[in-house]
Amino acid sequence: MRTGTWLIGARGSVAVTSVIGALAIRAGLTAPTGCVLETPALRERIRPGIGDLVFGGHDLTSVPLEKKAAELAGSGVVPAALAQAVKDDLAAVEQQVRPLPAAATQAGTASAIAADLDRFRRHHDLDRVVVINVSTTEPVPPPHPAHASLAELRTALSDAEPVLPPSSLAAYAALSAGCPYVDFTPSTGARLPALDELAREQGLPYGGHDGKTGETLVKSVLAPMFAQRNLKVRTWSGINLLGGGDGANLAQPGANAAKSASKQRVLPETLGYLPQGETRIDYLEDLGDFKTAWDLVTFEGFLGTGMRMEFTWHGCDSALAAPLVLDLARLTAAAHRAGRAGPLPELAFFFKDPLGEVPHGLAGQWRTLCDLVTALAPEPTP
Amino acid sequence: MRTGTWLIGARGSVAVTSVIGALAIRAGLTAPTGCVLETPALRERIRPGIGDLVFGGHDLTSVPLEKKAAELAGSGVVPAALAQAVKDDLAAVEQQVRPLPAAATQAGTASAIAADLDRFRRHHDLDRVVVINVSTTEPVPPPHPAHASLAELRTALSDAEPVLPPSSLAAYAALSAGCPYVDFTPSTGARLPALDELAREQGLPYGGHDGKTGETLVKSVLAPMFAQRNLKVRTWSGINLLGGGDGANLAQPGANAAKSASKQRVLPETLGYLPQGETRIDYLEDLGDFKTAWDLVTFEGFLGTGMRMEFTWHGCDSALAAPLVLDLARLTAAAHRAGRAGPLPELAFFFKDPLGEVPHGLAGQWRTLCDLVTALAPEPTP
Amino acid sequence: MRTGTWLIGARGSVAVTSVIGALAIRAGLTAPTGCVLETPALRERIRPGIGDLVFGGHDLTSVPLEKKAAELAGSGVVPAALAQAVKDDLAAVEQQVRPLPAAATQAGTASAIAADLDRFRRHHDLDRVVVINVSTTEPVPPPHPAHASLAELRTALSDAEPVLPPSSLAAYAALSAGCPYVDFTPSTGARLPALDELAREQGLPYGGHDGKTGETLVKSVLAPMFAQRNLKVRTWSGINLLGGGDGANLAQPGANAAKSASKQRVLPETLGYLPQGETRIDYLEDLGDFKTAWDLVTFEGFLGTGMRMEFTWHGCDSALAAPLVLDLARLTAAAHRAGRAGPLPELAFFFKDPLGEVPHGLAGQWRTLCDLVTALAPEPTP
Amino acid sequence: MRTGTWLIGARGSVAVTSVIGALAIRAGLTAPTGCVLETPALRERIRPGIGDLVFGGHDLTSVPLEKKAAELAGSGVVPAALAQAVKDDLAAVEQQVRPLPAAATQAGTASAIAADLDRFRRHHDLDRVVVINVSTTEPVPPPHPAHASLAELRTALSDAEPVLPPSSLAAYAALSAGCPYVDFTPSTGARLPALDELAREQGLPYGGHDGKTGETLVKSVLAPMFAQRNLKVRTWSGINLLGGGDGANLAQPGANAAKSASKQRVLPETLGYLPQGETRIDYLEDLGDFKTAWDLVTFEGFLGTGMRMEFTWHGCDSALAAPLVLDLARLTAAAHRAGRAGPLPELAFFFKDPLGEVPHGLAGQWRTLCDLVTALAPEPTP
Repeated sequence: MRTGTWLIGARGSVAVTSVIGALAIRAGLTAPTGCVLETPALRERIRPGIGDLVFGGHDLTSVPLEKKAAELAGSGVVPAALAQAVKDDLAAVEQQVRPLPAAATQAGTASAIAADLDRFRRHHDLDRVVVINVSTTEPVPPPHPAHASLAELRTALSDAEPVLPPSSLAAYAALSAGCPYVDFTPSTGARLPALDELAREQGLPYGGHDGKTGETLVKSVLAPMFAQRNLKVRTWSGINLLGGGDGANLAQPGANAAKSASKQRVLPETLGYLPQGETRIDYLEDLGDFKTAWDLVTFEGFLGTGMRMEFTWHGCDSALAAPLVLDLARLTAAAHRAGRAGPLPELAFFFKDPLGEVPHGLAGQWRTLCDLVTALAPEPTP
Repeated sequence: MRTGTWLIGARGSVAVTSVIGALAIRAGLTAPTGCVLETPALRERIRPGIGDLVFGGHDLTSVPLEKKAAELAGSGVVPAALAQAVKDDLAAVEQQVRPLPAAATQAGTASAIAADLDRFRRHHDLDRVVVINVSTTEPVPPPHPAHASLAELRTALSDAEPVLPPSSLAAYAALSAGCPYVDFTPSTGARLPALDELAREQGLPYGGHDGKTGETLVKSVLAPMFAQRNLKVRTWSGINLLGGGDGANLAQPGANAAKSASKQRVLPETLGYLPQGETRIDYLEDLGDFKTAWDLVTFEGFLGTGMRMEFTWHGCDSALAAPLVLDLARLTAAAHRAGRAGPLPELAFFFKDPLGEVPHGLAGQWRTLCDLVTALAPEPTP
Repeated sequence: MRTGTWLIGARGSVAVTSVIGALAIRAGLTAPTGCVLETPALRERIRPGIGDLVFGGHDLTSVPLEKKAAELAGSGVVPAALAQAVKDDLAAVEQQVRPLPAAATQAGTASAIAADLDRFRRHHDLDRVVVINVSTTEPVPPPHPAHASLAELRTALSDAEPVLPPSSLAAYAALSAGCPYVDFTPSTGARLPALDELAREQGLPYGGHDGKTGETLVKSVLAPMFAQRNLKVRTWSGINLLGGGDGANLAQPGANAAKSASKQRVLPETLGYLPQGETRIDYLEDLGDFKTAWDLVTFEGFLGTGMRMEFTWHGCDSALAAPLVLDLARLTAAAHRAGRAGPLPELAFFFKDPLGEVPHGLAGQWRTLCDLVTALAPEPTP
Repeated sequence: MRTGTWLIGARGSVAVTSVIGALAIRAGLTAPTGCVLETPALRERIRPGIGDLVFGGHDLTSVPLEKKAAELAGSGVVPAALAQAVKDDLAAVEQQVRPLPAAATQAGTASAIAADLDRFRRHHDLDRVVVINVSTTEPVPPPHPAHASLAELRTALSDAEPVLPPSSLAAYAALSAGCPYVDFTPSTGARLPALDELAREQGLPYGGHDGKTGETLVKSVLAPMFAQRNLKVRTWSGINLLGGGDGANLAQPGANAAKSASKQRVLPETLGYLPQGETRIDYLEDLGDFKTAWDLVTFEGFLGTGMRMEFTWHGCDSALAAPLVLDLARLTAAAHRAGRAGPLPELAFFFKDPLGEVPHGLAGQWRTLCDLVTALAPEPTP
C-alpha cells in the first residue's frame, strides 16, 4: 500500500508543509487537523493512510528542504519544534527531490520527467505514484491545435517550439509514466482534450483545479445560503491581499487573470446569475505566508429592502493547502486502484474550478465526496 | 384552497411586513424575494400559494395596521409607494385583527381565542387556519407539573393561577380549535408534552422555534464548512446590536437568556463540540428595524496554525422574517391537508432551535425541506 | 453680505444636495449637521452665514434640479419631505443654472463663462461670487508650456487647440471675472503657475483639492496615531466600492489614477514613509450614492510584534461633501473680503490633496482652520 | 542618571515584556518601536534614556522571570532569540524582584514595601526610583472616610481592618519612600485626596490611569474626527475579546465595571454628549496575549443621512503596553528631577482615564505631551 506522492514544486511552501506534516503525523507528533479524510465522518476509510505516503518531487530551485522548513518555522507556518523533530526524515525526502528536467524538445523533457518518476517508484518499491502540481500559477497559455488530439500532440512535442505549458507537460509525462495527475493550481494541467485522451488510454484518473482554501471556500457556502433563502445578491466584491512567493506571482497580470476567473466561478454556478463586482488580488510582501481576504455582499430581501454582509478571512495558505494535498494523494491513489480513468469530478470539494458538471455549493460537493469515499471503501476499515 | 393565517402579534413589525408583502405580491406589485417556496427549485409546488392566504390575528396593542405601515415605510422596511398601493386591502385585514382576549382563568382565555379563530374561519369560509406566533419573546417559564399531561393541563387551566406562558396558551387554544400552530419566536409555544399530546389527539401539525434570519443563518453554513474541512474552531464569539421593539425586549435578562441559548445551539450540533465564546445581544434604539451582528471565529489548521475569520451582518429583521412567515403558513397548511400530526421537524431550515432530531447545518436542512415539499406535492403543479 | 455660490456641475448629486440643504437650513427645517463652521467651536463666527448664500451654476446636462432632487430622495440621500418643502426655492435656483458655454476657442468659452458670472452677480446684487467645481473628475491633463505663464496662457487660449482642461478653464474664467475659485475635485483647477499668477494679479484667493469625505478622512486621523505611538506601519491597503455617476467615472483609468494618487498622499506625509499597499477604486452601480471603503493596516509594535487593524466606512458621499461645499463658500468669501489673494492652504482640513506646505494630520489641519477663522473673524459675532 | 523602575506586578506579561525590551534595546539588539519618546519628534530629549533604567519589583507569584519570558516567546509576544540573548541580564533583574510584603496591619505592609524600595535604591546607587503599578486590575473599593485626609489615613492604616486597596497601599508606600508613583491600571492607586496630600507633602509627582493601548486609543482619534466634522454620532458600541491573565480577571464583574467605565469616558469628553451603546469585555482563554476589539459607530450627516463605520483592532496588549511603561518611567523621573509635585495631567496621552482637566482627543494630548517634553528638556540633547 506504499504510495508515492510526487510534487511538482517540491521545494515550495505548500509542498514542504505537506511533507513535514505527513512525517509528523506518521510519527504521532501532531493531529491531522485540516485533513478532510480524517474528519470523524470519513476517518480510517481510505487506504493509503497518511503514513503510507512516500514523498519526492521536482523543482526549479535548489533551496534545501531543511532551509525552507526553517523559513516556514520563522514565519509561523510550521512549529519550530516539529520541524526539528522530523529533520532526519526530511533529509531522506531531500534525496528524492530532483531538478526539473529541461531537454531540447518537450518530448525529451517529458521522457526525462517520466524516467525520474519510474526511478522513484522502483527505488521505493511503490504500488503507484500520484503526481501533484503545487508549483507557481502559470498564465493561461495560447491555444494550439495539437491540444485537441493526442496523436497531433505527440508529433508536436518533438518540435523545437514548445506546445504545452509546463503544468501540461508535467501531466503528459506523468500520464505517460502510468501516474495519476492532480493539479492543485489554476494552471492548465491535464485539462486539454489530448491529455484526457491519454489518461483514458492509460487507464489513469486525473483531478483539479486550484485548491479551494480561503475566500472561495467561504463563498461556496454563503452563495448557496443566499440562493436557498431566495435573497437576491446585487453585488459581490472581494479583495485578496497576499504575501509570499505565491502573492508575487499572482500580482503578474497573466496569473492574476487566471486566478480571478477561477475565483468568481462559484457565484453564477450557485446563484444562477452573476452579481456585479470583481475579485481583486494584490501582493503585499510583508504579509508573508498569510493572506487576508475581504468580501462585501450587498443583497436585497423582501420588498426590495437592501442589506449587506462583510467577511474577513485571515488565513495561512500553506497551512490550508497542505492537508488537502495529502487527501488528494490518498483519494487519487485509491481511485486508481479501483480502476477509475479520466477526470475525477467527485474531488470538486477541494477545488475552486472543479472538473466536470458538478455541484458548486460546498454542501453538495461534500455529499459527492462522501459518496466517492463509500464507493472506494465500501466498508470502514477497522 | 383559501387558507387563514392568524398572527399572534398581528400589529408588530414582522406581521405587518408579512401582510403588506403578501398583498403586494398578490397584486403583482413586487417579486417574492426572500420567500423560500418561490426559489426556482421549489416554485409553484406548494398550495396554498401566497395569493391564497387570508390574514387576521390577535394583538395586545391597538395601533392601526395603517399607522404601523407608515412607520415601516419611514424606517425603510417597506417602500412607501407599496404601503400606499395596498392600503385598501390592508384596511380589510384590519377588520380581522382583534384584541388578545383575557378572561378570569386561562381556560376562559383559551375559549375566547378559539372562538375568534372559529369566527375568522367561518367569516372567510376558509379551508383551514394556521396560527403563527410572531409576538414578543417571553422569558423561559417556570416548570409546572401540568405541562407533562394533557389531562392535568385541562384541569389546571381552570385555576385562578396561570399555568401556561402566553405562547403556550395560544398554542393550546389554536390546537383546541383545530388549527395547526407555528412558533416563530423562541417562546415555549407548543413545546410541552401536554400540547404535543393535544396536537396528536387533534391530528394537527405544529412547528418552531425561533426564525433563523441573521447571524445564526450564517453560522449554520460556516460551522459545517469548518467541520467538513476538519479545521478546529477554538473560539466563536458574537455580538448582536439591535433596535426596534424586539431589541428592547431582548435586552431584558429573561428574554435575552432564552434567545442566546437558542442562537448557540447550532455550534455543538454541527461541530461536535462547543468552542469558547458567547453570543451577546445589546439593544440600541437608534438602529431601528435594522440589526448588526459581528462574529469572530478563531480556528486552528494544519500543524496547529492559528487563523481567524470575522463577519458582519447588517440586516433588517422584519424583511428577513416576513417572507418566512408566508412560507411557514403555506407549508404547515399543506402538511395539515396531507394528514400530518405532531411536530414538523422538516421545517428546521427556518428555525434557530428546530424541533426533533434534525440536521443543524443549513445544507442538510435544505435537503430535508426539499424532501418535504416533494412529499407534500409529488408533482410540480403546472 | 449676500454671497453667490456658483457651482460647476450644478445639476450633480453633491451640488443639488448642497442647495437643498442650504435652503432647508435657512428655512429652519433641519440642523446644519456636517457643516464644520456650525460646530460649537466655530459657530456664528464666519459671515456670510448659510442663509446668506445665493446659488447658481453651470452644467453640461439639463436634467432639472427638481428631478435630481426626486432621485436623491429616492435613494435616501435627501428626505423626500425636505425636498418637497423647499420646492419653490429650488425652482428659483433652477433659473440660475445655465448650460456650460462652449465657444470656438477656449478664450471665447472663458468669456462666456465670465459673462454668466457677471450677470448672476448683477441680477442678485451680490457682494461677491465664489465659484466651486463639483463636477466629474478629469484625467490628469498633458503638460503644456502655456501652463507656466499667464501671458503665454492668454495667447494660447485663442488657439483652436484646447490648452486647459475644463476645470482650469473654469478657474481662469472665474478669476478673470473677479471670483474666488475652489476645486472640490481632484481635477487640476487653479493649480497651474499661470492661474496662480492670475489669482494674485486679481487679488483673489483660491482653494482645493479633492474634498476629504471618507476613507482619507479616517486615514488622516489614524496615520498620525500610529506615528505618535511610534508603531511601524508595514502595509496599508484599501478598496473603495462606489456607485453613482462619480463611481462610473472614477472607474475610468485616467480619473482613477488621479484619485488614487490623491488618496495615498496622507500616508507618507504623516508617517514619514510610504508603507506597502495600494488604494483601489471599483465601480458598483448598485451601491447608488453610497460608498463602502475597507482598509487593512498591518503594523509592528514593541520587539517587532505584528498587529493589524481593519476599518469599514459606509458613507453617503453626497451627504458628506455637500455641507463642506457650504463651508468652503463661506470661508472663501470671508477670505476674499479680508483681502487674501493666492492659495488658501488653511483649508487643508477639507481636502485630500491640499495646497501648500500644510499639516496632513487632521488635528493639525483643524488647528490651522481654527486659526483662520480667528483671523477672519477676530471676535465671535453676537 | 541611573533610574530605578520598580514594577508592582513584576512577574506579569507587561512587566516582563518591558524589562526584556529595555535590556534588548540597551544591547542594541532591537529598535525602540512603540516607545513614544523615541519618535523622531521627541527622540533623545528626555533623560534618563532607556539604557539608564534599572529594574526591580514586587509580585505575589514566584514564577521566575525566565519562565515567564519563555511563555511570552511561546505565544509570539517576544522573539525567542531575543529572550535568549538577554538571559543573563534578566537573571540579574530576577535578583531584584521580591515577594509583595504582607504584615499584620497595612501600616506594617507599607513599611516593608518602603524598605524594599530603599534597599533597591541603595543597592544600585540610583538617583531615584519610579514605582509603576502593572498588576491585575482591582474592583472599585468601597469609600472610606480616611481616604479624604492624610492624617486620618495614617491613623487608620494601623487598624487591623484594611483601609486601602492594594494599589493605593503601594502608592502610599512609594510616596512615603520618596518615590514617584504611576498607575498603569484602572485601579485606584494615588487617586485619593489623602494620597494627593502625601505626594505634595513629599514633593513627588504621580500619574495614571489605565494605559491606553487599543480600542480606546482608536476612539481617541475617531471621536474628535466626528466632532470636528460636525457629524452626529448616534451609537457607539464595542466588544473586547481578550485572553491571558488580564482577560480572566477583567471578566470578573468588579474589574470589568472599573475597566468599562474607564473606556467610555473618551466619548462624552470629545463629542460633548454620550451616544447610545456600551463597551463589553469578554474573556476567551484561547486568544492568549492577543486582543480583538470590534466597534460599530453609527452616525448622522447632512440632512439626517444615516452612515456607519466599523473597526477591528487585533493587538497584543503586552507589546502595546510595555514600551509605554518605559516612556512613563523616563518622563516621571524627569518630572521629579524638574521639581514637579502632585498629578501629572500632561501624561494624558498614555491613559484611558487621565488625571486632571485635560484634552481627551489624542491630538490635544500629543501637543500637551510635546509641551511637557520641551519644559523638561528645553533643548534637544545632542
